Amino acid sequence: MAVHARHRERHFAGSDAVRDVILGMSDGLTTPFALAAGLAAAASSNLLVVIGGLAEIAAGAISMGLGGYLAAQSQAETYRSELARETHETQAMPGEERAEVRGIFRNYGLRGHALEQATHAVTAERDAWVRFMMREELGLEEPAPRAALWSALRIGLAYAAAGGIPLAPYAFPVTIGRALAASVIVTGLALVVFGAVKGRHAGSSPTRSAVQTLAVGGVAAGVAFGIGRAVASLAG
Amino acid sequence: MAVHARHRERHFAGSDAVRDVILGMSDGLTTPFALAAGLAAAASSNLLVVIGGLAEIAAGAISMGLGGYLAAQSQAETYRSELARETHETQAMPGEERAEVRGIFRNYGLRGHALEQATHAVTAERDAWVRFMMREELGLEEPAPRAALWSALRIGLAYAAAGGIPLAPYAFPVTIGRALAASVIVTGLALVVFGAVKGRHAGSSPTRSAVQTLAVGGVAAGVAFGIGRAVASLAG
Repeated sequence: MAVHARHRERHFAGSDAVRDVILGMSDGLTTPFALAAGLAAAASSNLLVVIGGLAEIAAGAISMGLGGYLAAQSQAETYRSELARETHETQAMPGEERAEVRGIFRNYGLRGHALEQATHAVTAERDAWVRFMMREELGLEEPAPRAALWSALRIGLAYAAAGGIPLAPYAFPVTIGRALAASVIVTGLALVVFGAVKGRHAGSSPTRSAVQTLAVGGVAAGVAFGIGRAVASLAG
Repeated sequence: MAVHARHRERHFAGSDAVRDVILGMSDGLTTPFALAAGLAAAASSNLLVVIGGLAEIAAGAISMGLGGYLAAQSQAETYRSELARETHETQAMPGEERAEVRGIFRNYGLRGHALEQATHAVTAERDAWVRFMMREELGLEEPAPRAALWSALRIGLAYAAAGGIPLAPYAFPVTIGRALAASVIVTGLALVVFGAVKGRHAGSSPTRSAVQTLAVGGVAAGVAFGIGRAVASLAG
């Protein structure tokens, strides 16, 4: 449906690809950042922080990419099975299904002759009838598994790329304390920038989004650091 | 709309809460499992694996819980701003918006008198008109931010609870190799069980879902282990 696509574009500035990249990046900044802070609180060498960080990035990117792809497949499968069920229902119990169409139109304010004519028109052709039920009754849009695959890949790659930012300072020959401080500064800046971009893209306040994104990352890293410190000192 | 809720339930067995728990658990089994394997490939003590794992679990749960809550808020905000825009458009350019309603009904097979009457009925009352445009033209359902908050909390908690499974073996006084082997066995079993439950809940094949879930976890852990081994041996 061309009208559909054109109008959506008018309302939501920017493309889905940008949204994927922003999503993956703000997530990739948060979790590897926090993990590295937790390890830095306990480890004696930067190398282990780097290894842990890389392992986390790989695991997160694979889980998001591959997991997202499989989820998209299963969603498409669910849609097909719901479609088959609705199609069957319009054949097996047309009276009940027709009453549901009438109920939906009544909710939109149709009454009397208009209500009957609209119900008759939609239920006259099975394809339109089933499509109407899928969207109006179940709130299901036809999924696009191929688009979802690309989306999952973009999110996974953006996650991996962003994960390098909090990790980079630990790859330098400095003390672990300095590496942690540098990681906090660099990642803090990146979280603010990405938070602002994310807010702008979503059409909400960039400032509020920047503060919120920084807060999520900061809380996660703070808690992870505290856990690392506590467990290490408990173990002596 | 009671019809809506009742019917959804009939189609999708089980509740949203169960879906949240399954989602959080299968994710919580994958990423902490892979991270622990990556760290085990390089670390000399189980303690660092446990610390890294706990830090990851905390970071992941916070990122999902808090991040999910904020995302739900921003989605609700987007819905409200789109709603305001559609409402404005029905006032500022009623002709064009009425033509869009007509186009949607035409797509459903309405023609002639029925088409005009249905269009007239929907556009007669502004509330119904805007609601119709939101769902049919933009594919937007009214979000429930409070439900989304609970959903994010459930996912985060399930993630944390499941993350304990791959980590548990490292908390015993055994060699790191044995702990890794035990973690692979225990997590492998858990991934198969949760994969099957997930598949069953989604209405698709439990066997296929079990195999897929195990594969994602296995690939992530294998890659993370390989990274840990490679970086550790490169560093001598």
